[in-house]
Amino acid sequence: MKLEKLVGERFREKPSDCVIDSHALMMRGGYMKYVANGIFSSYMPLKRVTRKIEQIIREEMDAIDGQEVQFPVVMPASLWQESGRYESIGKEMARFSDRSGSPLVLGMTHEEAAVQLVRDYGQSYLKYPFMIYQIQTKFRDEARPRAGLIRVREFTMKDAYSFHTSQADLEDYYGKFHKAYERIYARVGLPEVISVASDSGMMGGNVSHEFMLLTPIGEDSIALCTECDYRANMEAAECIMPHQRNDVSDELTMVHTPNIHTIEDVCAFLHCEEKTSCKAVVYQRNADDSYIVLFIRGDLEVNETKLTNHLGCDIHPAVITEECGLKAGYIGPVSLEGDFTVLFDRSLEGLNNLSCGANVYEYHYTGLDMTRDAADAEYHDFAKIQNGGICPHCGKPAITISRGIEVGNIFQLGTKYTKSMNMTYIDRDGEAQYPLMGCYGIGIGRLAASICEAHHDDYGPIWPFAVAPWQIHLCAVRSDDAEVKAYADRLYEELQDKGIEVIYDDRKVSAGVMFSDADLLGVPFRIIVSPRNRKQNIVEIISRDKSINTTAPMENAAEEVWKMLTKQLKPL
Amino acid sequence: MKLEKLVGERFREKPSDCVIDSHALMMRGGYMKYVANGIFSSYMPLKRVTRKIEQIIREEMDAIDGQEVQFPVVMPASLWQESGRYESIGKEMARFSDRSGSPLVLGMTHEEAAVQLVRDYGQSYLKYPFMIYQIQTKFRDEARPRAGLIRVREFTMKDAYSFHTSQADLEDYYGKFHKAYERIYARVGLPEVISVASDSGMMGGNVSHEFMLLTPIGEDSIALCTECDYRANMEAAECIMPHQRNDVSDELTMVHTPNIHTIEDVCAFLHCEEKTSCKAVVYQRNADDSYIVLFIRGDLEVNETKLTNHLGCDIHPAVITEECGLKAGYIGPVSLEGDFTVLFDRSLEGLNNLSCGANVYEYHYTGLDMTRDAADAEYHDFAKIQNGGICPHCGKPAITISRGIEVGNIFQLGTKYTKSMNMTYIDRDGEAQYPLMGCYGIGIGRLAASICEAHHDDYGPIWPFAVAPWQIHLCAVRSDDAEVKAYADRLYEELQDKGIEVIYDDRKVSAGVMFSDADLLGVPFRIIVSPRNRKQNIVEIISRDKSINTTAPMENAAEEVWKMLTKQLKPL
Repeated sequence: MKLEKLVGERFREKPSDCVIDSHALMMRGGYMKYVANGIFSSYMPLKRVTRKIEQIIREEMDAIDGQEVQFPVVMPASLWQESGRYESIGKEMARFSDRSGSPLVLGMTHEEAAVQLVRDYGQSYLKYPFMIYQIQTKFRDEARPRAGLIRVREFTMKDAYSFHTSQADLEDYYGKFHKAYERIYARVGLPEVISVASDSGMMGGNVSHEFMLLTPIGEDSIALCTECDYRANMEAAECIMPHQRNDVSDELTMVHTPNIHTIEDVCAFLHCEEKTSCKAVVYQRNADDSYIVLFIRGDLEVNETKLTNHLGCDIHPAVITEECGLKAGYIGPVSLEGDFTVLFDRSLEGLNNLSCGANVYEYHYTGLDMTRDAADAEYHDFAKIQNGGICPHCGKPAITISRGIEVGNIFQLGTKYTKSMNMTYIDRDGEAQYPLMGCYGIGIGRLAASICEAHHDDYGPIWPFAVAPWQIHLCAVRSDDAEVKAYADRLYEELQDKGIEVIYDDRKVSAGVMFSDADLLGVPFRIIVSPRNRKQNIVEIISRDKSINTTAPMENAAEEVWKMLTKQLKPL
Repeated sequence: MKLEKLVGERFREKPSDCVIDSHALMMRGGYMKYVANGIFSSYMPLKRVTRKIEQIIREEMDAIDGQEVQFPVVMPASLWQESGRYESIGKEMARFSDRSGSPLVLGMTHEEAAVQLVRDYGQSYLKYPFMIYQIQTKFRDEARPRAGLIRVREFTMKDAYSFHTSQADLEDYYGKFHKAYERIYARVGLPEVISVASDSGMMGGNVSHEFMLLTPIGEDSIALCTECDYRANMEAAECIMPHQRNDVSDELTMVHTPNIHTIEDVCAFLHCEEKTSCKAVVYQRNADDSYIVLFIRGDLEVNETKLTNHLGCDIHPAVITEECGLKAGYIGPVSLEGDFTVLFDRSLEGLNNLSCGANVYEYHYTGLDMTRDAADAEYHDFAKIQNGGICPHCGKPAITISRGIEVGNIFQLGTKYTKSMNMTYIDRDGEAQYPLMGCYGIGIGRLAASICEAHHDDYGPIWPFAVAPWQIHLCAVRSDDAEVKAYADRLYEELQDKGIEVIYDDRKVSAGVMFSDADLLGVPFRIIVSPRNRKQNIVEIISRDKSINTTAPMENAAEEVWKMLTKQLKPL
């Protein structure tokens, strides 16, 4: 490919709307073009990167007996009504009607389509286990697309679905998938990706893992233990608090606290720490606006996903009205009367000598003893784990919160979809059973952007060899020199004849323009043919990451380059 | 791949809803599954066929300097408003709104996206020419999906867009594309595909060709000349009629024709041939229901696409009311009064002694002389070309009408999209110009089905080697025989080690079941390991098309097979 003919614009200025480096560099390098909010077109360099990623994923899926299939992008609503998700999923799912008025949806995930595809096939236990996957376009109407390809509305995804006749078989295969994912990340140049236990969210099921590239620009938070190998996302990380009950319980005492509403103000007024207060956080159910009052230790925050999972329904922060019976700013667990769901975070269990609202305007209590004054409370884990928190695995106060990009996920779905969609098989004993499912996703574009995020400098991406758009960037500096041009043309042909992927820059531009374009394309090796090099009878070979800076004799440059590249092709 | 684990159902009965063989065989063979009207999922065998077709197309696109890119499936309506097609395209385009209420569409073709992608890039004549292409999912809300993958609503398409600074350059590249398409069809096993001149329809532009696989089950009609190489689709084929004016013109005479409405009845009553009558065919414009009266020779039919193109608007057959002023059954060109668009087909030009309606209930004329009685008429080509018609190229009455499946098309679009979307470049003289475009499509699924349609027998597809889901179908007949099984297992490994794609059937089923499944999968070569063959120390090698039926010694079967396959891999 001649660079002169490469469609796409390259420029120096960082676009003002780019908040992360990979986005800025992929815009500056002519990789992608904005079409609409969260919707992009890809130019050839990005298409080549994503095709290489897809091929690596395909090989690893085939290696664990995956069968590549294809589901539709457009599906009938009826399929999603079967599983119940037509109702349970909100605005993220695009819906429309066809010319006959039949409701259709755009696929944002394909569990329903997977069950539909194999429901008739998988009627005997002899057919199991099996795994099908596809690499296909998806659309998810994200409320806040951001950061280029990291969070978009239209994306290409590898999604896989496995089917099993026992939990043991599902877990065994889930383990194989985990290893396949590790191989994929290593092969695309991200061996540092870690897996973390995660919450399953709308996918259903119990066990799941997210694969995370740790980076400060990540939009997910992860709890890591510095003392053991515990890793979990915030939704899945259990928040453990040591019980700090005082030996002597004070009496419950009502205190006049006029114009004091916030937990900070209350604690300042009462001269106590926030962690010796019992805070009320109020939500409402989306469905009927009914109230949920959650009590938690004053210094902690609620993880709303934990709360949502406990309740099994969607919620929003409450609007507290005069009529509802709650006294905003003065809510406490003692004598709280009204038709509310009342929940207690485990951080409060057994504590005493706490401050809390008195359910009377302008009054708080001191001396709250949870055991004495809220004897019926049941405690669950609703709190966000914190830096320095206790590791649920090793018990040491060694939790650190890091940020990461989720570059893949795997779920043990169990029978959620096979039950709701009535997929059964006849087991060895002639009994009808629901198969168990696993599902496994990797977003291709997000992975490409993550690779760029992990491997770049100020001047452009530094693509790992296996996913680089080209393998060699050949520069003919001063191509107006006929001998330079003739030699570079021949070298271009020779390299291509060896099956090497070459982008060839023979434009009549300055070396500066040439090299800054090469930096933006991020090809692993640059070969420089120039009048000065020609005088010395050499070509320069420089790696994009600057680790290699060498020369080869002009007469067998192609051979030398080929030898160097074969080293890159070593299997892992 | 072991056949035992291949997901998908294979069965013997022809599904009742399948009207063509390829659809029936691809359902029976576990290639695809119905999801909704015109929407299918693909199982692994079809996915492998389509991926091979895609790769062949990709290679041929790259060979003519195409750059693979990717446009979104979901696009903002604003992009289609720019070109004017948001309004001009009807119900075939799926439309919906996102969560913020912004209107979006599903791509059914990507001219607008192509212009948007390169509009900023292509601002200097130095950047031209260039071609970009993608292989991507499209959705077109067809009124009548039919025939399996032949006419669907969701489909994968290779669509390419070229940009040029002169008509000569566009035409030159268009010719290259034509040749690339010929190579593609030859490589996928359909060298018999022909190109025909075609009408450009909603794509705009002037010159275009469709690539047709001639088959009786095709839904398109094509005019072919048996005397020269003239080929055109019905919309593009000019209908030429020899003028058969009589020497003497009769007088225009009103005849009482009670209860006689149709052209057949009129001609029977008047004892004349239909070709000596002037027939009125009436349409209404979709937009305002205004009337169009088209006169044509009585024995000919109107090609509505020709009429639509002439009018530049959509039409439908008229509902003739009392009030409109037309006398249904008695409409003629003489004294036709009212606010109608009146058109004349060229078949009438210069004729005399015709019968026609008198615009009076129950009366016709005889002796109509077009030159004398309709002196102001302008004549255009609106008639359907017919079997035995005159070839517009060689002039001989040698036109035959054949049926075909359109398996690709190429268009010279000119400046239709660059003008409407205001894409310009600065030419050599510093002047702003609109670039010219070409666009070029191939539907992947339809091509796969067409290959099956052209290459099958009663028992299944006979896939050409280059697109077959696997290259070798290995059958271990009586796999309960330990030695058969052990040998077949080893051969399976040896063949795979040579890079051969093998589907291996080691199920404990009868040879009959095994072979009928093999027929349905249509793999080019079958290798049979069996107790009987083992006694003779051979394996059988049988080609799916029965042209090869041979044996190889057991000890070097893999080597023999490999040699045989290398012959299939010869470049064209």
